[in-house]
Amino acid sequence: MLEQFESLLAGIRPVDRSLASVIQAHLDDLTKPQGSLGRLEEIAMSYALATGSPVPVLDKKKICCFAADHGVAAEGVSAFPAEVTPQMVYNMVQGGAAINVLSKHAGADLDVVDVGVNHDFPDMPGLIRKKVGYGSSNIASGPAMSETEALQAILCGAGLAADAHKSGYHLLGTGEMGIANTTPATALFSVLLGVSPETITGKGTGIDDVRLEHKKTIIRKAIEVNASRCSTPFGTLAALGGYEIAAISGFVLGAASCRIPVVVDGFISSSGAVAALKMCPAVIDYLFFSHLSNEQGHRAVMRELGARPILDLDLRLGEGTGAALAMQVIDGAVKLYNEMATFSSAKISEQETSN
Amino acid sequence: MLEQFESLLAGIRPVDRSLASVIQAHLDDLTKPQGSLGRLEEIAMSYALATGSPVPVLDKKKICCFAADHGVAAEGVSAFPAEVTPQMVYNMVQGGAAINVLSKHAGADLDVVDVGVNHDFPDMPGLIRKKVGYGSSNIASGPAMSETEALQAILCGAGLAADAHKSGYHLLGTGEMGIANTTPATALFSVLLGVSPETITGKGTGIDDVRLEHKKTIIRKAIEVNASRCSTPFGTLAALGGYEIAAISGFVLGAASCRIPVVVDGFISSSGAVAALKMCPAVIDYLFFSHLSNEQGHRAVMRELGARPILDLDLRLGEGTGAALAMQVIDGAVKLYNEMATFSSAKISEQETSN
Repeated sequence: MLEQFESLLAGIRPVDRSLASVIQAHLDDLTKPQGSLGRLEEIAMSYALATGSPVPVLDKKKICCFAADHGVAAEGVSAFPAEVTPQMVYNMVQGGAAINVLSKHAGADLDVVDVGVNHDFPDMPGLIRKKVGYGSSNIASGPAMSETEALQAILCGAGLAADAHKSGYHLLGTGEMGIANTTPATALFSVLLGVSPETITGKGTGIDDVRLEHKKTIIRKAIEVNASRCSTPFGTLAALGGYEIAAISGFVLGAASCRIPVVVDGFISSSGAVAALKMCPAVIDYLFFSHLSNEQGHRAVMRELGARPILDLDLRLGEGTGAALAMQVIDGAVKLYNEMATFSSAKISEQETSN
Repeated sequence: MLEQFESLLAGIRPVDRSLASVIQAHLDDLTKPQGSLGRLEEIAMSYALATGSPVPVLDKKKICCFAADHGVAAEGVSAFPAEVTPQMVYNMVQGGAAINVLSKHAGADLDVVDVGVNHDFPDMPGLIRKKVGYGSSNIASGPAMSETEALQAILCGAGLAADAHKSGYHLLGTGEMGIANTTPATALFSVLLGVSPETITGKGTGIDDVRLEHKKTIIRKAIEVNASRCSTPFGTLAALGGYEIAAISGFVLGAASCRIPVVVDGFISSSGAVAALKMCPAVIDYLFFSHLSNEQGHRAVMRELGARPILDLDLRLGEGTGAALAMQVIDGAVKLYNEMATFSSAKISEQETSN
């Protein structure tokens, strides 16, 4: 398994930036003032570079929503009881959750992946059963996962990205469901980015100020208890993460190794992406950060990464909802790149170069 | 014509806010933490209120892109020559412009409307010929339009909104094409909102710093020359606007009078919307500001209006491109409202109310 992981990391290459000038020349030939499509032009550039082609294709899209439980929920860090994780998985499989509506709206397929829910699901269409464990252990008293379990979860995510590549998907998106998972995500950001939990701990799905203070205490305790395990990004992910977060890390790594761009959802998904980035910095070339989460710490995290998410809609739901919405913007950007007329073909007067 | 205009204004009613509690109760029953869909919930609320129904429909969408020329182009305020206005109209009719790609991407129909281009177009499918004049007059030396022409342009826009309503459209969007039109738009904002041209004049499609200073001078001159005509919002619109800006005002007023929500594109479209708001403040209940334009003054204008646009993608193209992208977000918000499962039906544990 370790060998598989090492070859996954070794297979990720930065994009070939020598293509940028060809791509930029095409963008500048489109019938619009140069640069007037703003970030859509940047997105088209990033997308084309990631795919390694100046004639990029964006047709099939998929979102994988990874679900898992968290032992730390027992500490009372969430506004919802842990039983909601399997309930929401059923809701997703039945098509009633927000991510069902938005992935359909974006024209993206949706897979729900049980990578660590504390519940035995029957076989159901739309559910991928890849359970590594029945919920991670309580990080306030020890590591979330053994290193073997973390590897398993990472390789599960990477495998699903590779499968999607084989099935002809061009753009992937992350999502997650797991009661209490803002707690491990915050702990991970704190250690991986060197930011104090004080400044980035937020109210998750809606806890009050008293419980917020308690949550900060639990996060500090988790970091303290697991300090000796956090000498590497991988060790940190295993100690402070969770099954779905590790799977998201793997999904991002897997997408990058297949040269498929991947849209990172919100706060939790970003923690998986940051773990991936710390394990393999070249991953950045394949990432789109979809939206600025309303979860308090996300702004600081994006600032640390120098990232400007595509959308800012005060979402704090997860599931992949922000990724689905951002996919539509990316799709629009790539269509503009591919479908607009050019000055050279449309006989339109170009910008005056002198005044 | 004046009578028609007065009855248009008189027909616009604020939304019925008594529906808000029913709409909010449904939003809170959807299977997600309360408020976790952030601005999408606000958008669904606004949309439902505008339509006057707690079970809103959003199916057919249309963008009207109004084109006109501006006499002030002769002052050298734009980076592009005036001949680009008709060239771009041909490009739009042939499907090669950015708005063609993005309206199709959003599932919206597109009408291009010649309301004042300095060119005779043949009959072409997709072009609506409603020419009021061959370009407005130079605002640096007099009024852009006579009051009769301004009325004609307003009623043209209002008529197209009413036609769209009769044809079963549920959501409308504005767009425009007109070389030099950031100049009249800036002059309008300045007078209608009482903001100095110094702070809101920007580089349009891409002029340099020298020409920017010249543009500011021209705008100040236009405001001075037309001061006596600017005692009412309508007089200001006629004196400092342009045919497409007046038509957008009318389109917004017409949509509001039919209770159809309308998505306002960027800087130029906002100037038409502001004129409409000043003529009839109740219009605000039917407006969505689609995006924060990269045109320098737009942020200040949005601040003055207390508006927070849906997207922030550094666009500065116009045509309706921002409106098309925002339509997809609005569409997603309304689908979430209509299609998600509810707690009452899905057997999911709700948020714990005590700690």
